[in-house]
Amino acid sequence: MGTHVGDYMSNLNHAIELIKSHHEQYLAELIEFAAIPSISTLSAHKPDMQRAAEWAAQQLKGMSFSNVAILPTRGHPVAYGEWLNVPGKPTVLVYGHYDVQPVDPLNEWLSPPFEPTVRGENLYARGASDMKGNVHAFLKALQSLITSGGLPINVKVIVEGEEEIGSPSLDAFVQEHREKLACDIALNADSGIQKPDQPSLVYGLRGLSYFELWVYGPEHDLHSGVFGGSLHNPAQALCELVAGMHDANGHITLPGFYDKVRVLSEDESSDLAHLPHSDEEWRKMTGAPQLYGEKDYSTLERLGARPTLEVNGLLSGFTGEGAKTVLPAKAMAKISMRLVPYQDDTEIAQQLRDYLEQNAPATVRWELRTISTCSPVLVKRDTTGARAAAAALEETFGVRPVFVLQGGSVPVVSMIQTRLGVDSVLLGFGLPDDNLHAPNEKLHLPTYYRGIEAFTRFFARVGG
Amino acid sequence: MGTHVGDYMSNLNHAIELIKSHHEQYLAELIEFAAIPSISTLSAHKPDMQRAAEWAAQQLKGMSFSNVAILPTRGHPVAYGEWLNVPGKPTVLVYGHYDVQPVDPLNEWLSPPFEPTVRGENLYARGASDMKGNVHAFLKALQSLITSGGLPINVKVIVEGEEEIGSPSLDAFVQEHREKLACDIALNADSGIQKPDQPSLVYGLRGLSYFELWVYGPEHDLHSGVFGGSLHNPAQALCELVAGMHDANGHITLPGFYDKVRVLSEDESSDLAHLPHSDEEWRKMTGAPQLYGEKDYSTLERLGARPTLEVNGLLSGFTGEGAKTVLPAKAMAKISMRLVPYQDDTEIAQQLRDYLEQNAPATVRWELRTISTCSPVLVKRDTTGARAAAAALEETFGVRPVFVLQGGSVPVVSMIQTRLGVDSVLLGFGLPDDNLHAPNEKLHLPTYYRGIEAFTRFFARVGG
Repeated sequence: MGTHVGDYMSNLNHAIELIKSHHEQYLAELIEFAAIPSISTLSAHKPDMQRAAEWAAQQLKGMSFSNVAILPTRGHPVAYGEWLNVPGKPTVLVYGHYDVQPVDPLNEWLSPPFEPTVRGENLYARGASDMKGNVHAFLKALQSLITSGGLPINVKVIVEGEEEIGSPSLDAFVQEHREKLACDIALNADSGIQKPDQPSLVYGLRGLSYFELWVYGPEHDLHSGVFGGSLHNPAQALCELVAGMHDANGHITLPGFYDKVRVLSEDESSDLAHLPHSDEEWRKMTGAPQLYGEKDYSTLERLGARPTLEVNGLLSGFTGEGAKTVLPAKAMAKISMRLVPYQDDTEIAQQLRDYLEQNAPATVRWELRTISTCSPVLVKRDTTGARAAAAALEETFGVRPVFVLQGGSVPVVSMIQTRLGVDSVLLGFGLPDDNLHAPNEKLHLPTYYRGIEAFTRFFARVGG
Repeated sequence: MGTHVGDYMSNLNHAIELIKSHHEQYLAELIEFAAIPSISTLSAHKPDMQRAAEWAAQQLKGMSFSNVAILPTRGHPVAYGEWLNVPGKPTVLVYGHYDVQPVDPLNEWLSPPFEPTVRGENLYARGASDMKGNVHAFLKALQSLITSGGLPINVKVIVEGEEEIGSPSLDAFVQEHREKLACDIALNADSGIQKPDQPSLVYGLRGLSYFELWVYGPEHDLHSGVFGGSLHNPAQALCELVAGMHDANGHITLPGFYDKVRVLSEDESSDLAHLPHSDEEWRKMTGAPQLYGEKDYSTLERLGARPTLEVNGLLSGFTGEGAKTVLPAKAMAKISMRLVPYQDDTEIAQQLRDYLEQNAPATVRWELRTISTCSPVLVKRDTTGARAAAAALEETFGVRPVFVLQGGSVPVVSMIQTRLGVDSVLLGFGLPDDNLHAPNEKLHLPTYYRGIEAFTRFFARVGG
């Protein structure tokens, strides 16, 4: 099965040619993958999770991977396959996820989220960018090299189904399959670049602690005229608690919240200050009337180097059309914090609890439910993998990649760091305006095709 | 059709006997009425509104009322009928509504809201107490007197279908039908008593101004990791605005909100202080851990004599199971104020707008939608109608009624005051623990049967 080392360059050139002539076929395949409504957080979609895992496994089988299997976890399964045909060469563990975010508000989608639709240069579908496009891109990169004479490295692929809910079963899975997953280099494709013409490599990811805060008042909903004025309205009390979590300068008020926040090195600060970024362009992209954030920090610091606390959802009382004069029995906020090194997700949960104990009035009851947590992570910028990724990006885009701290969270990166002792290379091709987790998620097709080429160059070069 | 004046006492006695022997039949009829899901705020229930209006009209026809009709309005229709057979005698306009509140949260109902179910001494159904029970009770009172020889007064009945949404079409309707509705005395049955053994008469109702406040941030939902930290989360901004509407003493902070609030007379303060009331019993009835309210006022003052501001609903972002890491594009709060004499609902809307203009940050946009408004009202305590009602209550319950200020709002009372120049007698038989507007609304059947008798005595005596 192996090929001669001398063939690698001609293999790579052949693979790139192959990719350039197969755009249409790739797009058709990706549309098939993106049409599977694999929403991990909604239990009604359980059969779709299985279908999506099988779709990934089928791809691996199709390119002669061995030991392809749908491996069970406590939650949604993991698709696994390996191509271990060049003994003595390094082994790369490639990570992706086949699950996607929910689609509501559905009425804001211009085309149905699971009927992938091309408009202009983009493919619109839930999961198109996060991250079925990236999964499909690395699969096509591997396939194009295998078809062109073989891979110069050994590869193991895992595609999991719970990233969008915080990968709650994956740590146990990685622990259980430590030997099967052993590797020299890890590639995490759940990532993006700055702009279509500015490639980048992520070296830090924020952690995530996600909670539901419930505030309870009366035992059941009451008539707001008959009882209003005599009770602390739980929706009001919830608003008071949430409002108090930031001060007037945008600082988070949880006791001790900033104690362990890592200060950037001078190099990093300088890199960050020189990244291509315009506050006004960023604002325009969001459509917000003004930017907002922690005082005394730049937008890029706020996005990557500083922790945040966001309200992800609010629900209380009557929310239908018109009027219902109810004094609600309860109110709920979904609240999540993005953590930075060296904050500890366990400590953060306690800090939130401390805040509530100190600030919740005796006129209501409250309950805090932890939905998921994940540690922040930093990866080394000068590993074999990172160097190969930087070279692959420069060759593909014609521009040197910049190193960035990403605001999002990818739980598996710290699991692989802890359990397998390997830092991940974060290489993927989402764009900031892809509407991740939002209506009208899209994938920029020219960037996706370039991404396939960049992955191909990475796999061709990372073996040395 | 008329009967001799001398027959009234024997007619009344006969009617009371009739009532006592027809409990089962009345209950069966009421169950039929309460089974109609006449939810006025939900457009899907439009056919049910027609059915409920027809049910009421059928009852009027069945007891030989004239000119019975379903009269159109801009919204849901009004059932009308008249019994004008004793010329020279006063005319009483009787008001009720056939519409009901929405039923959510549906899963908290022990029996389906439109499958009326008797458990113990109560009938459970949406609208059983508010106010199909009261409508049915005055219809049965009228019927029992007519069957027993005739009414000693003239009667006009209107049963409308929009009370639960603030009676938006009724003012124009009353204006248009001024002559048809002309009367000497008005009876409004949308009311209640303090306890099953403590009758009461309401002489003041709070007004209601109901709004939706929308806060907008980015143009669409964003990934909270990618964008979090750089934008003012609209759910957070909404919480900040709502939290600021009360100060630490429970006072409402809208500029000028208390300027016109009427101070109770010494008599009223003394009456209020002597009403049967226990803070601890009230708290227990609600199930809240503690009472709460405006500092320096008693619970009964807070409930009847002071204005309030309540959050009736909150909605933003992701509210399904589990985690979705979204920075929402918008957040909504339903906010309503209960107003007391002599606050003006138009001025209150402007005060809320002023508050938002002064306090909303430039980092978000906001919009205020008025859903409904209704003025507060005071009625005279010493009219013919009020005296007849007090006598009817005392005779039926064996206890003198107390005069109370009710926390709820009944828009039609001020319309009839303004348009027809008549103060309403507020006589009805709901109880504070009937779960009005809440899951498991119920009607206390012994009180309902007594209510029929009390209405009968009122109609028998109010003619003089």
